[in-house]
Amino acid sequence: MYSELFGQMKKQLRQLDRWLEAARSFAEAKSFDSKVFLELRLAPDQFAFAKQVQTACDTARVAAARLTGKEAPAQPEMEPTLEALRARVQDAVAYLDGLTSADFDGGATRVITQPRWEGKTMTGADYFLEHALPNFFFHLTHSYAILRHSGVKLGKRDYLGALSQKAAP
Amino acid sequence: MYSELFGQMKKQLRQLDRWLEAARSFAEAKSFDSKVFLELRLAPDQFAFAKQVQTACDTARVAAARLTGKEAPAQPEMEPTLEALRARVQDAVAYLDGLTSADFDGGATRVITQPRWEGKTMTGADYFLEHALPNFFFHLTHSYAILRHSGVKLGKRDYLGALSQKAAP
Repeated sequence: MYSELFGQMKKQLRQLDRWLEAARSFAEAKSFDSKVFLELRLAPDQFAFAKQVQTACDTARVAAARLTGKEAPAQPEMEPTLEALRARVQDAVAYLDGLTSADFDGGATRVITQPRWEGKTMTGADYFLEHALPNFFFHLTHSYAILRHSGVKLGKRDYLGALSQKAAP
Repeated sequence: MYSELFGQMKKQLRQLDRWLEAARSFAEAKSFDSKVFLELRLAPDQFAFAKQVQTACDTARVAAARLTGKEAPAQPEMEPTLEALRARVQDAVAYLDGLTSADFDGGATRVITQPRWEGKTMTGADYFLEHALPNFFFHLTHSYAILRHSGVKLGKRDYLGALSQKAAP
């Protein structure tokens, strides 16, 4: 099911790309520099918008790399613009696009660690559920909330995207 | 895997209960009525805090009911207090606690619908991934973000809770 879950994360990243376009268009309509968005934050000790977006992308990319046992391509330092953020999102989507369902075989039992865990480990299954998935949605939703708080016109449909609904018989 | 995913949602609801306690304690320390939190919102056309919390609870409860083919117990109208919100969270946790892994068998292929879809349907698998899971995290994270924006002292550890890490060998 990891493949489907990452498929949903990919869908959410595509929605995030639309929110960035909505932010750009909002700034243009109001005649302010869209770079202003990059430093907006909901609390002084929370990540600013640019870092929320980056972290959503990186969480998805790195989690997919860890669960498939592949290396995640290094991400270069980012130019501080909305355009560069969109490129970051598109890179993450392209990375996820390159993975097949079979790549995730055995992911649940991989041993995952990262430097800040000081040698402690998690199984792939626990890491995905308890860490990667909630962190991804945390930073994704904060990105959305910062834009909504700033007046950008977005709604729940922009968050969820199109649903796989079947027509009434 | 639905059972594990709902297990994680249950864990997140338990964390949400702690955020509500942190909000109560913050109000007490600052000598204001904790009911003030209930109407806070990040944008005038977003749900206020109380409704964000309720919707997180209801999304988890209703999704579990739909995927297991059980009836979700009706939730009474709520007294507008932080205590009542905590009871709502605890009810959702208790409901999820009562479900077994076997209850979710066949959930992926159930036909799901709801009144606002005007007769359209989704498979259980699509409904969970595209609708229930992202909506749950949306309202959960907005609940958190409203408290952080208001100055309540919370951090990523309060969001994630304890991780199933194994000690270094």
